[in-house]
Amino acid sequence: MTSWIDSANAPGTPFPVHNLPYGVCSSAVEVKPWCAVALGDTVANLGVLEGWGLINAEADHPVFTGSSLNAFMAAGPAAWRRVRAQLTDLFTGDDPRLRDDTRRHNGSLLTRAAMRTHMPFEVAEYTDFYAGRHHACNVGSMVRGPENALPPNWLHIPIGYNGRASTVVVSGTPVVRPLGQTRPPGAEAPVFGPSRRLDFELELGAVVGVPNRLGRPLTVAEADAMIFGYVLLNDWSARDLQAWEYQPLGPFQAKAFATSISPWVVPAAALEPVRVSTPPREVPLLPYLREPGPMLYDIQLEVDLQPAGGDRATTICRTNYREIYYSAAQQLAHHAVCGCAMRTGDLLGSGTISGPEWHQRGSLLELAWGGTQPLTLETGETRSFLEDGDIVTLTGWAHGDGGRIGFGPCTGQIAPAPAEPAW
Amino acid sequence: MTSWIDSANAPGTPFPVHNLPYGVCSSAVEVKPWCAVALGDTVANLGVLEGWGLINAEADHPVFTGSSLNAFMAAGPAAWRRVRAQLTDLFTGDDPRLRDDTRRHNGSLLTRAAMRTHMPFEVAEYTDFYAGRHHACNVGSMVRGPENALPPNWLHIPIGYNGRASTVVVSGTPVVRPLGQTRPPGAEAPVFGPSRRLDFELELGAVVGVPNRLGRPLTVAEADAMIFGYVLLNDWSARDLQAWEYQPLGPFQAKAFATSISPWVVPAAALEPVRVSTPPREVPLLPYLREPGPMLYDIQLEVDLQPAGGDRATTICRTNYREIYYSAAQQLAHHAVCGCAMRTGDLLGSGTISGPEWHQRGSLLELAWGGTQPLTLETGETRSFLEDGDIVTLTGWAHGDGGRIGFGPCTGQIAPAPAEPAW
Repeated sequence: MTSWIDSANAPGTPFPVHNLPYGVCSSAVEVKPWCAVALGDTVANLGVLEGWGLINAEADHPVFTGSSLNAFMAAGPAAWRRVRAQLTDLFTGDDPRLRDDTRRHNGSLLTRAAMRTHMPFEVAEYTDFYAGRHHACNVGSMVRGPENALPPNWLHIPIGYNGRASTVVVSGTPVVRPLGQTRPPGAEAPVFGPSRRLDFELELGAVVGVPNRLGRPLTVAEADAMIFGYVLLNDWSARDLQAWEYQPLGPFQAKAFATSISPWVVPAAALEPVRVSTPPREVPLLPYLREPGPMLYDIQLEVDLQPAGGDRATTICRTNYREIYYSAAQQLAHHAVCGCAMRTGDLLGSGTISGPEWHQRGSLLELAWGGTQPLTLETGETRSFLEDGDIVTLTGWAHGDGGRIGFGPCTGQIAPAPAEPAW
Repeated sequence: MTSWIDSANAPGTPFPVHNLPYGVCSSAVEVKPWCAVALGDTVANLGVLEGWGLINAEADHPVFTGSSLNAFMAAGPAAWRRVRAQLTDLFTGDDPRLRDDTRRHNGSLLTRAAMRTHMPFEVAEYTDFYAGRHHACNVGSMVRGPENALPPNWLHIPIGYNGRASTVVVSGTPVVRPLGQTRPPGAEAPVFGPSRRLDFELELGAVVGVPNRLGRPLTVAEADAMIFGYVLLNDWSARDLQAWEYQPLGPFQAKAFATSISPWVVPAAALEPVRVSTPPREVPLLPYLREPGPMLYDIQLEVDLQPAGGDRATTICRTNYREIYYSAAQQLAHHAVCGCAMRTGDLLGSGTISGPEWHQRGSLLELAWGGTQPLTLETGETRSFLEDGDIVTLTGWAHGDGGRIGFGPCTGQIAPAPAEPAW
């Protein structure tokens, strides 16, 4: 299947017509952000296409008039399927109404590189899971020793905590080094200042489209059908703040200063061809967590680190989403089982995606083993944790039916800590 | 200072003209919820008063036209002061335009008992702190023994965790017993089913009015000025789910099924006369947490428990907000110090407010000491944890300049766990 938009057929494009990821853009001309779909080097304005009647998610009201995807996400799976089919017809030429109308090209199609991307959806709440087994074992080994690496509940529960939604930012937003409390080794009392152990975490984010009712548990199959799509997610972490604050109630300030996501939401439908099963269970799961079919995806992931002042980036991690022990559907089913209401725009972080090999580790904490084995980059610099000016870029892609299904980069540069106010 | 609304002058009314708490109501006639202020047995429709030009928060646009207080909250302290002064003038008669116009009475004043109360504001995010020292010591004693009761960070950090905003509900909403994983004593593997150790937690909730910018820390004084008001808050907790899930990342499902708040937001301005200092510091705080003045309030609090089928409630706890070690302003300053963006509608739970005496304990976990010392109610029933049909009611009041500044009750009845779906 090819598109009449040539760049969507280019080998290696992240956005062939099999992908059709959704986002929110603005341009120098149209400064109010609008909903978009990406194809090759082009973006199409979905509000304009909807206004012309070329796509329609809902029969009776528009969903693409706002500056976020939330209304479309809330419209549900049937609407997602309809719009995806309509866009596929429009961009492959089965429906010639856009292809053959140059005036419509000018009014709806723009060069992607000239666009500014915005948060694609309003995050209702952000939950971060801890479902990467190698990550949990690595971190547990450092904190509690290898014999107690995995907490006793880990093989039974998709462990997660509520993160902070107000600081989820789109790729490209600077990440300001946080101020906070830390306790130096051996000290009795804490000190205050910028974090010195700033880290990234490579994750995939699942975006909830359809809400459920308060007090109403979900099956894993129902949860899977509620997920609109996926983004890359960098769960920036201040390890020194975290070590001092996290007992007994979990990470708080150490994770609250920024979480970056990629600007394009890859629809779950685009990932259908790469569905795979979660890793084999070591102990049987309780029935409410059992998957009726493959619920994970085969998505290759990389992390690039470009050091401050460096002229090029080093790929410091290559791994795969398949390493995650609990699928997003299982996480969502667990999230709702107590009766918790899930909402359009809820974002679920997978947990850090580390593989079994050293180069497959999805955080500096693991790659430099708590600072004891600094990482040497191709440019000669070494890193135990991130320094001001460092740029971290996550990328991801799957091999779909029609070539690469890409996520587009999720990037962030570390900015210096703010000056302290006069307390 | 008295009001021409007689019931606002009645001794013991929670809502004298010195209080003027804000809420959201609907009636059989006006079913779309509208913003309101409570005086004695009356509520006034703020959208109507604003439409008549009798109050104006902002010069150029209305803030009371919606079904939540968020627009008014976002308008900031100057607007809050202006409206409070205007309402005071209107209801004391200094401004006769409402008092002397019977047509306006009929169009804006309604009987409070006939109203349905709704969530007074849209909760942006909900953060729950752990700032009650006696509570932390009691819980710590049960979990880690009395010698390690207080975690090492507790006297330095207002410990908190992100809660779940989607399940914050208004007083009167049934609280459905959650399903979830628990591990029975001595068992290797967990079991699934309804929580058997369901509890309440008596807290005060601070409601953030004014947002701050991402990456921009706040002083304690700035944080204090951003707080719009306070509500009673019941942080319902499933202790058995919590015990199994909370390591290493904190409470999650155990707290996500419901959090109840009282329907009337008592403005911070109404509590000015009862400002008090936080308890003496055992160790000095870091400068960013130091208070420039008294930031806590002298608010008396009670918990009533009416057992299922019982004909009356027993007061099982009498305590005071003064027991809290970190004020809401300190909690908010800590929350933002890493650069975390705070938003209009953020809700900060104080932590469970227990006093030093047994009858001052703000949870059943403490009152019945983990189930080992069941509580005997006046009706003869005993309780270690909550049973289906039990009704828990929080009340609170301060002795302001013009009499009692009340919060109105925060109540919830336990409903049975839902039937399990066919997993």
